[in-house]
Amino acid sequence: MSFVAFGEIMLRMSPPGRELLLQTPKLDVWVAGAEANVVTGLARLGHSTGLIGAVPDNDLGRAGVAGLRAHGVDCSLVRTAAGRMGLYFVTSGAGLRATDVVYDRAGSSFASVPPGEWDWDALLGGADRLHLSGITPALGPGPGEAAIAAAEAASARGLPVSFDGNYRARLWEAWDSDPRGVLGRIVPHADIMFGNHRDIALLLGREFAGDGEDRRSAAAEAAFEAFPKLQIIASTARHVEDADRHRLSARVDGRDGHAQTEEVTIAGIVDRIGAGDAFAVGVLHALRRGGDIAAAAQTGLALTCLKHS
Amino acid sequence: MSFVAFGEIMLRMSPPGRELLLQTPKLDVWVAGAEANVVTGLARLGHSTGLIGAVPDNDLGRAGVAGLRAHGVDCSLVRTAAGRMGLYFVTSGAGLRATDVVYDRAGSSFASVPPGEWDWDALLGGADRLHLSGITPALGPGPGEAAIAAAEAASARGLPVSFDGNYRARLWEAWDSDPRGVLGRIVPHADIMFGNHRDIALLLGREFAGDGEDRRSAAAEAAFEAFPKLQIIASTARHVEDADRHRLSARVDGRDGHAQTEEVTIAGIVDRIGAGDAFAVGVLHALRRGGDIAAAAQTGLALTCLKHS
Amino acid sequence: MSFVAFGEIMLRMSPPGRELLLQTPKLDVWVAGAEANVVTGLARLGHSTGLIGAVPDNDLGRAGVAGLRAHGVDCSLVRTAAGRMGLYFVTSGAGLRATDVVYDRAGSSFASVPPGEWDWDALLGGADRLHLSGITPALGPGPGEAAIAAAEAASARGLPVSFDGNYRARLWEAWDSDPRGVLGRIVPHADIMFGNHRDIALLLGREFAGDGEDRRSAAAEAAFEAFPKLQIIASTARHVEDADRHRLSARVDGRDGHAQTEEVTIAGIVDRIGAGDAFAVGVLHALRRGGDIAAAAQTGLALTCLKHS
Amino acid sequence: MSFVAFGEIMLRMSPPGRELLLQTPKLDVWVAGAEANVVTGLARLGHSTGLIGAVPDNDLGRAGVAGLRAHGVDCSLVRTAAGRMGLYFVTSGAGLRATDVVYDRAGSSFASVPPGEWDWDALLGGADRLHLSGITPALGPGPGEAAIAAAEAASARGLPVSFDGNYRARLWEAWDSDPRGVLGRIVPHADIMFGNHRDIALLLGREFAGDGEDRRSAAAEAAFEAFPKLQIIASTARHVEDADRHRLSARVDGRDGHAQTEEVTIAGIVDRIGAGDAFAVGVLHALRRGGDIAAAAQTGLALTCLKHS
Amino acid sequence: MSFVAFGEIMLRMSPPGRELLLQTPKLDVWVAGAEANVVTGLARLGHSTGLIGAVPDNDLGRAGVAGLRAHGVDCSLVRTAAGRMGLYFVTSGAGLRATDVVYDRAGSSFASVPPGEWDWDALLGGADRLHLSGITPALGPGPGEAAIAAAEAASARGLPVSFDGNYRARLWEAWDSDPRGVLGRIVPHADIMFGNHRDIALLLGREFAGDGEDRRSAAAEAAFEAFPKLQIIASTARHVEDADRHRLSARVDGRDGHAQTEEVTIAGIVDRIGAGDAFAVGVLHALRRGGDIAAAAQTGLALTCLKHS
Amino acid sequence: MSFVAFGEIMLRMSPPGRELLLQTPKLDVWVAGAEANVVTGLARLGHSTGLIGAVPDNDLGRAGVAGLRAHGVDCSLVRTAAGRMGLYFVTSGAGLRATDVVYDRAGSSFASVPPGEWDWDALLGGADRLHLSGITPALGPGPGEAAIAAAEAASARGLPVSFDGNYRARLWEAWDSDPRGVLGRIVPHADIMFGNHRDIALLLGREFAGDGEDRRSAAAEAAFEAFPKLQIIASTARHVEDADRHRLSARVDGRDGHAQTEEVTIAGIVDRIGAGDAFAVGVLHALRRGGDIAAAAQTGLALTCLKHS
Ligand SMILES: Nc1ncnc2c1ncn2[C@@H]1O[C@H](COP(=O)(O)OP(=O)(O)O)[C@@H](O)[C@H]1O
Ligand SMILES: Nc1ncnc2c1ncn2[C@@H]1O[C@H](COP(=O)(O)OP(=O)(O)O)[C@@H](O)[C@H]1O
Ligand SMILES: Nc1ncnc2c1ncn2[C@@H]1O[C@H](COP(=O)(O)OP(=O)(O)O)[C@@H](O)[C@H]1O
Ligand SMILES: Nc1ncnc2c1ncn2[C@@H]1O[C@H](COP(=O)(O)OP(=O)(O)O)[C@@H](O)[C@H]1O
Ligand SMILES: Nc1ncnc2c1ncn2[C@@H]1O[C@H](COP(=O)(O)OP(=O)(O)O)[C@@H](O)[C@H]1O
Ligand SMILES: Nc1ncnc2c1ncn2[C@@H]1O[C@H](COP(=O)(O)OP(=O)(O)O)[C@@H](O)[C@H]1O
Repeated sequence: MSFVAFGEIMLRMSPPGRELLLQTPKLDVWVAGAEANVVTGLARLGHSTGLIGAVPDNDLGRAGVAGLRAHGVDCSLVRTAAGRMGLYFVTSGAGLRATDVVYDRAGSSFASVPPGEWDWDALLGGADRLHLSGITPALGPGPGEAAIAAAEAASARGLPVSFDGNYRARLWEAWDSDPRGVLGRIVPHADIMFGNHRDIALLLGREFAGDGEDRRSAAAEAAFEAFPKLQIIASTARHVEDADRHRLSARVDGRDGHAQTEEVTIAGIVDRIGAGDAFAVGVLHALRRGGDIAAAAQTGLALTCLKHS
Repeated sequence: MSFVAFGEIMLRMSPPGRELLLQTPKLDVWVAGAEANVVTGLARLGHSTGLIGAVPDNDLGRAGVAGLRAHGVDCSLVRTAAGRMGLYFVTSGAGLRATDVVYDRAGSSFASVPPGEWDWDALLGGADRLHLSGITPALGPGPGEAAIAAAEAASARGLPVSFDGNYRARLWEAWDSDPRGVLGRIVPHADIMFGNHRDIALLLGREFAGDGEDRRSAAAEAAFEAFPKLQIIASTARHVEDADRHRLSARVDGRDGHAQTEEVTIAGIVDRIGAGDAFAVGVLHALRRGGDIAAAAQTGLALTCLKHS
Repeated sequence: MSFVAFGEIMLRMSPPGRELLLQTPKLDVWVAGAEANVVTGLARLGHSTGLIGAVPDNDLGRAGVAGLRAHGVDCSLVRTAAGRMGLYFVTSGAGLRATDVVYDRAGSSFASVPPGEWDWDALLGGADRLHLSGITPALGPGPGEAAIAAAEAASARGLPVSFDGNYRARLWEAWDSDPRGVLGRIVPHADIMFGNHRDIALLLGREFAGDGEDRRSAAAEAAFEAFPKLQIIASTARHVEDADRHRLSARVDGRDGHAQTEEVTIAGIVDRIGAGDAFAVGVLHALRRGGDIAAAAQTGLALTCLKHS
Repeated sequence: MSFVAFGEIMLRMSPPGRELLLQTPKLDVWVAGAEANVVTGLARLGHSTGLIGAVPDNDLGRAGVAGLRAHGVDCSLVRTAAGRMGLYFVTSGAGLRATDVVYDRAGSSFASVPPGEWDWDALLGGADRLHLSGITPALGPGPGEAAIAAAEAASARGLPVSFDGNYRARLWEAWDSDPRGVLGRIVPHADIMFGNHRDIALLLGREFAGDGEDRRSAAAEAAFEAFPKLQIIASTARHVEDADRHRLSARVDGRDGHAQTEEVTIAGIVDRIGAGDAFAVGVLHALRRGGDIAAAAQTGLALTCLKHS
Repeated sequence: MSFVAFGEIMLRMSPPGRELLLQTPKLDVWVAGAEANVVTGLARLGHSTGLIGAVPDNDLGRAGVAGLRAHGVDCSLVRTAAGRMGLYFVTSGAGLRATDVVYDRAGSSFASVPPGEWDWDALLGGADRLHLSGITPALGPGPGEAAIAAAEAASARGLPVSFDGNYRARLWEAWDSDPRGVLGRIVPHADIMFGNHRDIALLLGREFAGDGEDRRSAAAEAAFEAFPKLQIIASTARHVEDADRHRLSARVDGRDGHAQTEEVTIAGIVDRIGAGDAFAVGVLHALRRGGDIAAAAQTGLALTCLKHS
Repeated sequence: MSFVAFGEIMLRMSPPGRELLLQTPKLDVWVAGAEANVVTGLARLGHSTGLIGAVPDNDLGRAGVAGLRAHGVDCSLVRTAAGRMGLYFVTSGAGLRATDVVYDRAGSSFASVPPGEWDWDALLGGADRLHLSGITPALGPGPGEAAIAAAEAASARGLPVSFDGNYRARLWEAWDSDPRGVLGRIVPHADIMFGNHRDIALLLGREFAGDGEDRRSAAAEAAFEAFPKLQIIASTARHVEDADRHRLSARVDGRDGHAQTEEVTIAGIVDRIGAGDAFAVGVLHALRRGGDIAAAAQTGLALTCLKHS
């Protein structure tokens, strides 16, 4: 498999159309999860991909797996485990009303697997690349340990590792966590990092002064210095005009320079959720197909824009 | 109860999504009615509220009551009565197509209750404030008499009264009516009036010259002079750029000055219906929580904007 | 046109699936009305048919007309009129729960047309046959007069008339009515009557003793004697085993004998509404195609059974 | 309030129509919970009722409360609490396929409230009667203590207590539980118990020999002896012919005799879930309205049958 | 009939709401087809219209006919024929995602009718005007011959003919076609042509230099010269700002001058499909009602704009 | 892969709930196809399975593949090809109304692949068993040749072949076909055949006298004699009591004896389509797990019954 990711499969429940959550007693159900989104997107672009994860042995777990398989993601490495299916409930924003999310993922099967039960040699045996995100370690000490072990094992086998910062304050704050400590043991194994100056600031324990481009350059420089294995840093910048009108640009930093796209205006925003995952898909796809950092930035931005529609 | 309102509970029927009415043979059903909207909104903000009204003793009437109760509105003062459930059918506008409404409220239970059957002493016994609107008296002589009696009884008990102009030409013109005569017996009892220079012009039987702010000031001054009990006049001004883009501002006049908000642009309009009721909710909420007229204007505008989404 | 009927077009609103009315806030909408059902059914069997009626000039009225036209019923004789669209709301029964109906047809456009405004010579100009039912005269004095005038005009022009008893106690009891007096001026013009001993008892002001077949024979005999123009009396007998299992048979009486079908068991009843109209369709179709009373009974029963599914 | 119950409010999620769970990505959402069902049913029959419970402070919790309030259940004693909303997912059976349930209620707000935080004097202050079920104590030690305290407090205040056995093996087996020990501290306070010989066998730690009626009589006798406060024992007996055809009867035992209904056949089973709660509603309603045990058995059975449809 | 059109009735299948095609396993079905749209639109504006076409003798064919009849289009000239129902599948665009169409019309009943089987004298006997489009001849040699024969027969009978270019490259390229040759035998019979400089360029086998207005004038002039019968050329110009914001204007050329509307901005585009047909409806309606070319341009533009919403 | 099948993936379109086809303009879409159903069912029982087939390179083709992959069927051997997606439209029966199907599969991608383009050595390289059905050869000469080649190639490689008769008169009669000739070149390679005396009669060109068991025994004997490779013949017998009540039994013949199940009554029939495929799944599953013919008959019947619900 070209890409394998490690992460939680979730079910996203949202009201039909533009309704508020449970305004009428109906829910639409979608398979979700940051890492799952990335391998799904790559599969739709023609890559062979797989997911390493865990679901409960019930109809919800099976629906999660079925949803990924429908897009061609190999789920033979998804195990069943005690615990429940991670859920979240969403109301899409409209006009001046922001998108709202109720998380209901505590006690999930994925988060409950003892870290020692993941056999990384076996799990990574058929993979060319590993993708991780900052969400898994935010779920608790067990998933954190597992994510670190995955990164180390991939590194040891010489597999390139991509890592998406995906900082979720709510998750880290729900337990006695040390984000910098944990993430600081994953990022050193990454070749590609998705994240901006804020992610880097967190990792390095320092702020970056200045604005826009300058701040991003400074942060990238510092990250390349701190993490010798890191080759690529990719991020988007979003400027919200109003709820229905955003401006987006993408930047990809390499060790020898960076690429910056123009800004694109997105009107009539339908759905912001998953836009970051679509960006990662575009960048990974372009690089895998031999593109340079400019191509990566363009492709990443293009997929992000499509995702909003 | 902090707020009690007197008015008709209706069922609003609209096509799914952005379809035209009965383009496909499906209807979505919502509980509606200007006064019902106001107490619903106040209940959702944490106030104890109730409605005085009447519905038929059938599944439609029960659905109307259930919809209000779901939001926490006390319906113990909603009686059953002969007649039918008031309905209206709506197609939401889109692009250049305007929102369209087919009223089907003739012969409603609410409008059919003989005015003498409302026992205002009993009905207002547990209330701190009464809210009325100009829709009830527009329904016919009976509802008009009932609304006047409600205003007088509240006044006599020392309960503050709020009144929302809500002028509906179609309703007044459907019978041999005298809007000025009827409203002129309600407004003298109001402490708070929702309405602009057009409402005041109607009440005083005169026009106000000038434009925008000036006209509103002149009208407010005249209203304060004509109605000694009146303390607050609140209104919004809407500037339609196109069907999907409106600019809105709010103004609240007190006897010692007025507050005027900035204009807010609302894009991607989803639903204009009920925006005026949301404004009343915001103003009443802010004032009840001890806010001044500036807070009232801001809160009213904020809720109106949210309502559009 | 082979058949033209005179009657009210209604919209039937029912909850999706097997839900109770407004258990969820959704309604499915169907075009309905006894006479409309008959011409719709005949049109689907290939006859050219039309309806004479009235609807309001709004989206509800237009939806009613569109629904009939979709089945090929000519609606060029449906006029618009003041008043509202007749509605009714239905919850389908299931298990031991009976089907429930909330009528909301008071003040309908159809019932509001002054009887003198129907120009029967023009309206019947293109018709070969007229179909009426006992529902129209039950709506009030105006519709009653109109139905009588229609029957007389058809009779005068030599058009065969069919009449479906369709006795609706609720409708007759809602006003100061004289069902026997009114129906007694329509049936003398009918060639075909749909109705059983109870309809005949009402018309003749006497009871029929005995049971089942005997009672029906006696009633038919009496009716043929009382109404010299009458040639055919058709009726069904229903034996309810339980909500999901009925037994049905049909009987058609002619002046020279009668035909009686076997009993058919219908299981898993989906929808009883409109079964009587389907019977009329089957009988009229068979007779029009030159069938005898046995064929009429069989065809009527077959369509009734299909209608239940 | 005539009846107050203590129990968990849940959301029941089920596929549309007769589909399997997540066969299509849509869910219908209903408010559920055994005790909530009982007070909802009683409210629909005209009794003033309330629920004591806890929900999370989010849109799911609010939807649960709104659903109860819609039916007229007073929710002013429902508090918010940390934890999540209890959920369960259902596929209705059809033909030979059994109804299937996936519970997802671990970590619910209701189960997480420390038992000492329920202030029973305040909570029972406005109540005439208390209803409990065997589900609450099955949720864990905390809810068990709370249920015992509720029963004791009601008893101490002289409030009649009804208790529905509702034995759920899956719940009790999920932790280190002692059902007999816990239930044995609740039932002594009950005046009315819903349960059959199996519930009594569990409580008394002994089996009852024999079959049908005899076994039920022996069990009732033993229960009356063991629990001096107990006046009424009510239960149903179900005989499953096939998935679409059940036979049901009800029995109510008093200290001076018992009432037994005939068997009723229910065909075309739509939904078995909640049938036991409907039985409790019928019995409590009949007794409250002054009926004897025969009336209680009849009314309980009637409501159970309606619930299946 | 005021207008009769000759063309294929299709079923358009699209996902609910703003979903992608088959993202969930549901389709909404609409009756479609360029010529069918034109007569439907004219019927809704009060003209008597009919369609000449062919559908398969199955439920899909019947649904297509029913959909047209619902709008009042006479379908007595729609025959059944071997072959299948023409289908197409659509995903509406949103944001930066374009509208996408999967055609599935090969082997349709309409395209399969041997051209000699259309009896134009009979078919045009009751018509005042004939409408054709460039889609029919693009379907293959048979439909092309039929369209030519229709145009010739109408011409011979002195019926005005309108023709909508509707160039579909995908259809013409699917077979060994000669668009110029075929269309060049239809347009000479047309009084009114809907099309711009590109349609004319194709017909005359030459390009038109210049930009905007100039190019359109030159093209119109050339067309009027080449086709002596032609009196009116009508077209719209669309300027796409972004997916949710278009600017549209209309132009109508007559032999003595032309009319050009202002540009109208359309925001929040819902549905572009069928906009061209709506333009034709507006122009034909205005001309039929005696309007001049300015009125035709305005009315055409107004209906196009409404269609987008 | 344990099982690989060769056959057409289709989309089945059916109305929501128990509606008639296109009674409302909505369709539910399911992935279907006899061979696809078999590998889907086996995958759900835990076998590794794959399909060999062809779909168009559009959203319909992709949806078909996604639907199979969701159930875990390997689709890496499904190619794209010119042509269209095979569709069929279904109205489920209810009461006395039979299930109705409109096929729309002419010109499908699957049927259009030139037989020589299937590279059987490559396609069967990873398979343990091949499943074929009588539908593929009924689609035309090309698919027939392909099916024969598949059977021969499997035979040559020593792979067991199962074959499901699935006689479809409508398909064979649509072209100048020779069912006996074509099937007679496939069955000789089969180890397992699903079919009854009628399938065998067709293959051998002779009738089997007698009734029920006798006729089946005679037919099986003759088939075993004619086809030396054949080891197992499996079939069901259905006795229709009424539309909602069928009796089913299964029979499996081996060379040394046969197994016959009891009859099972199925009430409240939901969906008969696919029942034969479910039978094949059960038989193949039982045999693969080492069961004898009695187990195969039981398991086949059990899955068939579940499928009806
Ligand atoms: N508190 C934080 N500490 C470190 N990084 C953060 C923090 N908040 C956000 N980020 C990072 O900033 C980037 C942008 O995140 P966010 O503001 O959520 O917008 P978007 O929706 O575009 O991803 C992400 O890579 C995220 O991981
Ligand atoms: N003909 C009228 N006479 C008096 N007041 C009117 C009249 N028409 C509208 N109004 C008042 O003007 C205000 C604005 O009404 P409207 O134009 O309907 O916009 P909105 O949707 O913002 O309420 C309301 O308070 C209404 O009561
Ligand atoms: N009170 C009545 N007086 C006269 N005729 C009646 C009366 N009630 C019912 N009928 C007639 O009896 C026949 C059967 O009616 P009904 O009992 O409603 O069953 P169904 O649903 O089979 O039509 C109808 O023709 C109806 O007009
Ligand atoms: N293992 C058990 N121990 C004690 N009582 C039980 C047990 N299982 C079921 N019961 C009781 O038996 C009665 C019938 O329960 P059940 O078999 O689930 O059918 P129903 O769906 O009719 O409630 C209930 O009162 C229940 O509490
Ligand atoms: N290749 C072409 N040759 C000739 N005419 C064309 C061609 N492509 C488009 N047209 C014509 O140009 C006009 C505009 O078509 P199009 O660009 O599809 O936009 P619209 O959606 O506004 O119709 C139509 O009348 C069409 O027939
Ligand atoms: N005309 C026929 N010739 C040969 N076999 C047939 C024929 N018709 C049906 N069969 C076979 O008979 C069996 C039963 O088919 P069918 O009657 O359609 O019922 P079922 O729905 O149970 O499959 C199938 O194996 C089918 O292939």
